Amino acid sequence: MIRVGIVGATGYTGLELFRLLKKHPSAEIIYMSSRTYAGKRLDEVYPSTLEEAILEDFDARRISESCDVVFTALPAGVSYGLTMELQNVKIIDLGADFRFDDVSTYTKWYGSNLERYDTTERVYGLPELYRDSIKNARIVGNPGCYPTSVILALAPVLKTGLVETDTIVVDSKSGVSGAGRKEKLDYIFSEVNENLKPYNVAKHRHVPEMEQELRKISGKDVKVIFTPHLVPMTRGILSTIYVKVSKSLKEIHETYLEFYREEPFVHVLPPGVFPSTKWCYGSNHVFIGMQMEERTGTLILMSAIDNLVKGASGQAIQNMNIMFNLEETEGLESLPIYP
Amino acid sequence: MIRVGIVGATGYTGLELFRLLKKHPSAEIIYMSSRTYAGKRLDEVYPSTLEEAILEDFDARRISESCDVVFTALPAGVSYGLTMELQNVKIIDLGADFRFDDVSTYTKWYGSNLERYDTTERVYGLPELYRDSIKNARIVGNPGCYPTSVILALAPVLKTGLVETDTIVVDSKSGVSGAGRKEKLDYIFSEVNENLKPYNVAKHRHVPEMEQELRKISGKDVKVIFTPHLVPMTRGILSTIYVKVSKSLKEIHETYLEFYREEPFVHVLPPGVFPSTKWCYGSNHVFIGMQMEERTGTLILMSAIDNLVKGASGQAIQNMNIMFNLEETEGLESLPIYP
Amino acid sequence: MIRVGIVGATGYTGLELFRLLKKHPSAEIIYMSSRTYAGKRLDEVYPSTLEEAILEDFDARRISESCDVVFTALPAGVSYGLTMELQNVKIIDLGADFRFDDVSTYTKWYGSNLERYDTTERVYGLPELYRDSIKNARIVGNPGCYPTSVILALAPVLKTGLVETDTIVVDSKSGVSGAGRKEKLDYIFSEVNENLKPYNVAKHRHVPEMEQELRKISGKDVKVIFTPHLVPMTRGILSTIYVKVSKSLKEIHETYLEFYREEPFVHVLPPGVFPSTKWCYGSNHVFIGMQMEERTGTLILMSAIDNLVKGASGQAIQNMNIMFNLEETEGLESLPIYP
Amino acid sequence: MIRVGIVGATGYTGLELFRLLKKHPSAEIIYMSSRTYAGKRLDEVYPSTLEEAILEDFDARRISESCDVVFTALPAGVSYGLTMELQNVKIIDLGADFRFDDVSTYTKWYGSNLERYDTTERVYGLPELYRDSIKNARIVGNPGCYPTSVILALAPVLKTGLVETDTIVVDSKSGVSGAGRKEKLDYIFSEVNENLKPYNVAKHRHVPEMEQELRKISGKDVKVIFTPHLVPMTRGILSTIYVKVSKSLKEIHETYLEFYREEPFVHVLPPGVFPSTKWCYGSNHVFIGMQMEERTGTLILMSAIDNLVKGASGQAIQNMNIMFNLEETEGLESLPIYP
Repeated sequence: MIRVGIVGATGYTGLELFRLLKKHPSAEIIYMSSRTYAGKRLDEVYPSTLEEAILEDFDARRISESCDVVFTALPAGVSYGLTMELQNVKIIDLGADFRFDDVSTYTKWYGSNLERYDTTERVYGLPELYRDSIKNARIVGNPGCYPTSVILALAPVLKTGLVETDTIVVDSKSGVSGAGRKEKLDYIFSEVNENLKPYNVAKHRHVPEMEQELRKISGKDVKVIFTPHLVPMTRGILSTIYVKVSKSLKEIHETYLEFYREEPFVHVLPPGVFPSTKWCYGSNHVFIGMQMEERTGTLILMSAIDNLVKGASGQAIQNMNIMFNLEETEGLESLPIYP
Repeated sequence: MIRVGIVGATGYTGLELFRLLKKHPSAEIIYMSSRTYAGKRLDEVYPSTLEEAILEDFDARRISESCDVVFTALPAGVSYGLTMELQNVKIIDLGADFRFDDVSTYTKWYGSNLERYDTTERVYGLPELYRDSIKNARIVGNPGCYPTSVILALAPVLKTGLVETDTIVVDSKSGVSGAGRKEKLDYIFSEVNENLKPYNVAKHRHVPEMEQELRKISGKDVKVIFTPHLVPMTRGILSTIYVKVSKSLKEIHETYLEFYREEPFVHVLPPGVFPSTKWCYGSNHVFIGMQMEERTGTLILMSAIDNLVKGASGQAIQNMNIMFNLEETEGLESLPIYP
Repeated sequence: MIRVGIVGATGYTGLELFRLLKKHPSAEIIYMSSRTYAGKRLDEVYPSTLEEAILEDFDARRISESCDVVFTALPAGVSYGLTMELQNVKIIDLGADFRFDDVSTYTKWYGSNLERYDTTERVYGLPELYRDSIKNARIVGNPGCYPTSVILALAPVLKTGLVETDTIVVDSKSGVSGAGRKEKLDYIFSEVNENLKPYNVAKHRHVPEMEQELRKISGKDVKVIFTPHLVPMTRGILSTIYVKVSKSLKEIHETYLEFYREEPFVHVLPPGVFPSTKWCYGSNHVFIGMQMEERTGTLILMSAIDNLVKGASGQAIQNMNIMFNLEETEGLESLPIYP
Repeated sequence: MIRVGIVGATGYTGLELFRLLKKHPSAEIIYMSSRTYAGKRLDEVYPSTLEEAILEDFDARRISESCDVVFTALPAGVSYGLTMELQNVKIIDLGADFRFDDVSTYTKWYGSNLERYDTTERVYGLPELYRDSIKNARIVGNPGCYPTSVILALAPVLKTGLVETDTIVVDSKSGVSGAGRKEKLDYIFSEVNENLKPYNVAKHRHVPEMEQELRKISGKDVKVIFTPHLVPMTRGILSTIYVKVSKSLKEIHETYLEFYREEPFVHVLPPGVFPSTKWCYGSNHVFIGMQMEERTGTLILMSAIDNLVKGASGQAIQNMNIMFNLEETEGLESLPIYP
């Protein structure tokens, strides 16, 4: 059994890690910390967990001695400092601290400084692209929710090279759980329900992350015009992507089927079928649909994920499975809940 | 492996059976029928199932020859006729056709006539009360969603005998999936969203079912005043129950803890904690809370379930587990999805 | 034109007062205060108001000199102190500070002490019952949202005297806006959506308010067993009330029709029709339905209101209309928004 | 008083016409028809209307004799035939039958043939652009909901001419009421709630309508790449529009302020403020926000409307006001309901 720790167990991604790991046949949660609720039982914070284990304070030595892997689900900048204290333990960080190849990009967008970043043995944890390097990584920077939905949707067509990369429009819509468990007016029910709103238009921190990865895939500079929207639902991200291509829909569709043929979690829909976020609810699956606007040669890609699963905790466990040579789908086989 | 058939696989309870059975380690779905979608692949109706198996027409011989157990998820009156054609196969019916001890009650409330009902070897499938007889039953009448939430909440205190049974007020609230997958104006989003409404006030078909069972538990006639409400959410039932008792809250709470001590799915909450429907989302768990209105000696019981799981398909699988001598929780261990 | 002030203009009831008064033909808002947002324009806090007026600090002298009437929409205990500083201005308080006949009840349930309470010229502002005394009142204690829905539903049958008043079960369900605009985890979207939960079971502060009024109507002690529930919707309260009576449904229905014949806002539904909260959305209307559980002689009353209109700001304006000898429906004629 | 008829009074746009006209000071509803509910009182179909008037069958003579203006809220193709029978009455059609300058475009996208279309005296009823011709029109083709949100957002910048019109990406999100009151599985609550989905991608019938109008504004061929999405909310449309420009955000913002300076319903937000659909709830207002993606010279426009008001019935009444020389805002002054 893999001995697992969760640092930041009472945020929504921490809670989702707990839910998924609890039924993982090869993993055992032996440590959970929470700054806010240390000393409480998990079921006092979340009765639905039925878990009587006590939440602890962060303790680098205890983690280093007792865990094989630790998931850190913490605010940006906090993870980095804590993980530097850990030894002999693999780390899967659900924040942004280990996502960037170039630390100056991180500093520009997230503010804080990460000392000696270049010496960390980190990998960007998108299994469908980086499976091999994840296998041997000590630290995995788990991708952001929006970037996961966008990179997986764009990768196959970008690889073909027959794409205009100087302007890719990405219009994403996310459920509210993506904002985490925060006491903030913006997220209270009466403000969000029966309401739809864009935010951080063309200024979201996930843009540089997307562009870093899309650049590596295409070998060219990629400019993403990104508008995220808050949708009155709890879970789910749908990204609608507009990109100019010089291939037919039929050829592109075949490219996608081929690209994801062996992938257990990525499903390319038949032409004319478009994804719904609810098809992913509670599961690690990704659905990708496509349509061509023939007059302008614009390919419209649509991808749906559950932001807390493939967009966060599910993908983190997929990474763990890879790092420990397990079946990649282990603990992640559950179908989405519908309706 | 238990060979399983699902008759009526494309309704919401049929779909939920599929989701839960798909990860059941000892069961294999080998037959699914749908009157409406026969000939189609399941993933054409529900892409989220990722299931390419073809939906068939109802075929009594094929079921009898190939299945060990069949789940029937059909409109009232339809199940009875079909199941009469089946041989050598156990039946778990998710409708009302096998719930009543006295067929005349069924006929009065559901209209149709069930011929030779008295000769059917049926059991009311509430495992927490009838585990032993379920074990050897050929036909299980799986309880209704409201009755499940109400009977489990009332059983322990009714057993004490210190309860006024001539007037028990049951005020229940249900998510919309309880109405099934029906093309009906009453259930379209714009009519239900931002709306709460009572329906079938004091006239719901679940009243005689509740009263039949509560009478057996208490040994006395029980009159239930029942008001169901439609809530703008997809899943979940909360029943709030008002009953006059002559015991203290402390004593009653201990009775409940004792009554459900060994039950894997029933959770009695500590005093002052009240259940939320979302604590059950997608799971077979039941949460029961209680409070005393001291001046009037009124015990207020609250129970929460997922109407499609413990209120239907999950409970049906729990019954299957009992009928086939499996661990009762097999395939039902998943925690609820939260948030 | 009546010169109006709103103290606490940026809470939800303050905002609703603004919306309704803005189209009131005989009222003019000349003063709005907000502790949190003083100095800002209203449309900076709520762009939907399209209102450029600046929010002020509370200023007793300015109000006393420039307003004919002031609405106070403030936390319990705060209103009382501020209103004591006001002179020559009528006051309609949307909180609990002026609702109680007996100050000791207030102190017991709300904690704070109200000095010289007996000398205030206050009236309980439920127009359908106290129209005449509201007309000449200087201070109106505007009823709570739950009490409005419950008292209007029970008044006619209580007046008949043929009711058991020692145990009246009131099961209420409210939209989330009833909790106000609060940064609290309990009210964030991801916790409330797809969720239904009881709270303050048998301990809600609105119980003594209901009982005070029901006692005056019936001339007898009334005991209310009250369970409020939080519903995943923004607006609306539905109260389902269970009371033993010794009259037929037909007679009771006629009593209700007669009782509310002249009331512009109270609508008694025909037998078999039950109210939906959405029928009231954004309007001051009340819908009352009823059903009899014949075996037990239990009358089931259901009443629906918009908690922010008839349950708060609409009723406050109805009171203002009475106090200033206007048509009672002035500014409140809008139909509910449906769907 | 203007004597008004509503043909198709029980669909959602018909109902919204009723709600708005009921408080219109210069209009009186004297005729309402409904094919489905003829013979019933309106409050039997919609209790929230409190309206006892009887719904009639369609009667061309009665309308011609008794009405000054009739609103037709009917399926595409049905309106045209009925209106041909009417005489001496102005017509405001909420469907697509009178929106197109070129009848062949209509026939291509809507299927049916409209005989002698060229002889109809029709105007495209977008007041902000065609106020003068609407004034004297006999028949107004009221714009579609999506086109209203898109055309108003794009008009000012298109007029400048400094825009690439060969590829304009329009990503729209709509509440479910836009689909009307239809008994269809796609729109039942359990399928829509907690779900977001694109539909009719690059094939929606509103594309030719948008392009017709955008072409007239810009004087150039405009190609719109359009993806509509269904959002789990009842009302509201948000369109997010991506267009390449060669002007600064500051200049464009000033152009918008200038363009809409005199418009009572169109509100240009300050830079950095983005619209929310709920700011329009139940009102005729439009909010437009903007942002520039500097690297690519992409202007991101966002516009929010209530699809049933400015997107349908409110705009229709605005047109009526113009046609009868009333104040354009008459009957439409109500502020949005928030929260």
